[in-house]
Order: sequence, then structure tokens, then C-alpha cells
Amino acid sequence: MDITEFFRQSAGKWFSQRTNHYFALNQSESGKFNIVIEMIPNDDLLLVKLYEQHKIDPAQALRAVRITWDGTMERGDRKDTGSTILVPVADPYNPHEGKLLCETSYAETAPVAGRYVMGGDDALTLITESETLYAEERLWFASPNLRMRTSTLKRLDGFSMASFCSEIRMGGKQPPASSVAATEANS
Amino acid sequence: MDITEFFRQSAGKWFSQRTNHYFALNQSESGKFNIVIEMIPNDDLLLVKLYEQHKIDPAQALRAVRITWDGTMERGDRKDTGSTILVPVADPYNPHEGKLLCETSYAETAPVAGRYVMGGDDALTLITESETLYAEERLWFASPNLRMRTSTLKRLDGFSMASFCSEIRMGGKQPPASSVAATEANS
Repeated sequence: MDITEFFRQSAGKWFSQRTNHYFALNQSESGKFNIVIEMIPNDDLLLVKLYEQHKIDPAQALRAVRITWDGTMERGDRKDTGSTILVPVADPYNPHEGKLLCETSYAETAPVAGRYVMGGDDALTLITESETLYAEERLWFASPNLRMRTSTLKRLDGFSMASFCSEIRMGGKQPPASSVAATEANS
Repeated sequence: MDITEFFRQSAGKWFSQRTNHYFALNQSESGKFNIVIEMIPNDDLLLVKLYEQHKIDPAQALRAVRITWDGTMERGDRKDTGSTILVPVADPYNPHEGKLLCETSYAETAPVAGRYVMGGDDALTLITESETLYAEERLWFASPNLRMRTSTLKRLDGFSMASFCSEIRMGGKQPPASSVAATEANS
């Protein structure tokens, strides 16, 4: 599976249970989210702007996705809604790895550039790194309708948290290949 | 890393946060455990009995571990203590896979035979299968002192739950290689 195929399998509506484990406090916290994942046509204006901003050759950019979430974390009954766009940019020398641009709806700062690695076991790893932070997320399908995610966050003084999401496809079915193909034909 | 090395890195005392996600109810539950993992000498009487019971050639059995846990799941403040012994038996045709005998302290039934796969990414997968149940657990080290585990449980009518454990080594240090070597020399 390549990252485009992974995103294609991810497209749809998901019910996600999330749990964060905080290491300093030995505390955990859970939340529930509705998540919508859509593939974005390559000529979407927002993408064109992103390519320019990051000096990316559009021919190297792979299919991007928009992830929209709406849910609540239990502690303090905190609402959490937002969306983010992930744009993979192929590494011309390695078909399984590349750059990953990440533009989040609420961030006022410049988009974050990370990287992705598509494993031989069909798991997708997303890595975001800065001088003070290292975040790694692993995503995989237990079945076409059950997606799993784990992530860890490391700061200068060590790992600070881990999180786990189990995501059930709503309606229990993947969109038919024909509707995905139709969306792609429009891009 | 092979499974013996994985178990060697796992030896020690861990504080584990566990979360179960139940799919039918869309509910989650957390717990906290102290876990002790010890490598067992190959001539331990319990192992010798297990080899006989399963008609295993002791020369094919790799180093076994005993895992002892003591903790509480939050719902109903349920205490959960027990121990289990895992005995990997090498597949002579594939160094990365094999059988896994599992003898649990509280089980009155015969020991369960599953299998293990050691991935190229140093993650260990344990699989237990019967006619009505398929359980798969994936274990890996985010660092020598942070171990992660995810598992899924599938019944005849589909996936019923997923769980996630993040485990911090108590004291924050691996036992020195010399003490492990000393233990091994005794086996």
C-alpha cells in the first residue's frame, strides 16, 4: 500500500475513541470524535497556495486529504473541533517516504512540515519535529472499517504523553470504489 | 532484534497505564498496573512440564518470561492481579516467527498455544486464535524505558475491543547488562 492508497482507504466518516496517557501525572483522559476524511482535488486553491509557500513542484505532490473533527474530551467536557490538511510530497529517491505539509485550521503560524514513512506492513508513520518537540504518529488498518492510531510526544526532557485512537467507519462500509474514482476524475 | 532480545529489554519493573475501547458500547475504561517481567531459566520445573505437555523439544524453546501484574481497572474499582508465562518456540524454517505457549495463573484450562512474529521494525506481534476468537497484540519500544502495546480482540461477529498500554520503566533505567548476563548464566 502507498500513502495515496492509505488515504483513499481512510476517506469517509469515522467514529473515533481517543485516549491520552500523560506520563508526568500518570493520568489518562478519553474523548469521542466524529471525523470526516476527504481527498482534495490537486487543483484546490488552498493546495496551490501551499505548493507556492513551500516551493513544492505540484507534479511531486501526491493526493492530499482534509481531516475534520468534532468531539469532546471528557476532562472539563472540552469541545474540540477543527480541520487539518495533509499534503504528502514524494521523495523522488524513495517511493515509501516523503515530506508532509500540514496546515491546521486554527494555527496562525506557518504550516508545519513533517515527513511520512509508509511501512512494509502497511502502517503509515507521520513525524513532526522541531528543536523542542518530536511527535510520531502511527496509523494502520486492523480491517477496512477499523483504523487505529498511536502517537507519542517527546519534549526536551523526555516523553510527555502517548495517545491511542480506535476508529470505526460509520455505516460500516467503505465508499464504493466508483464514487472515489468519480471524485478523483474531477481533480 | 529477535524475541529473546525483546524479552531481555522487557525485563524489569514497569508502571503501565491501560485503556480498553469497547466498540459495541462506544465506551472506554482505564486502569493502572505495576508489572514485573522476568526471564525464566530454561530448566525451571514449570517449563519442563510445559515442554512435555506440548511435546516441545527443549532445544527449540527460546528463553521464556514470566509477567506478573497487579493493578486496578477504574470501572467498579476492580482489582486485577495475576501472572502468565510466555514460552516462544522457534520455527526452524523462519527465525522471525514461531509458536508461543501461554500459561496463565488463573486459567484452569490447558495452556493456550499462539504464535509470534518479530517484525523488521522491532515490533513483536503475538497472535492467539481459536474457532471463536482472534486476538492480536503488538508490542514495541518507543525508547528503552517506554514500552507500548496495542491489542485487538475479534469474535465471530467482528471486532469487539481494542486496548492500549503505555509502560514506563520504574526507576527509569534498564537493568545493567551484567546482571542480565548473570541471570542467564544461571539458566
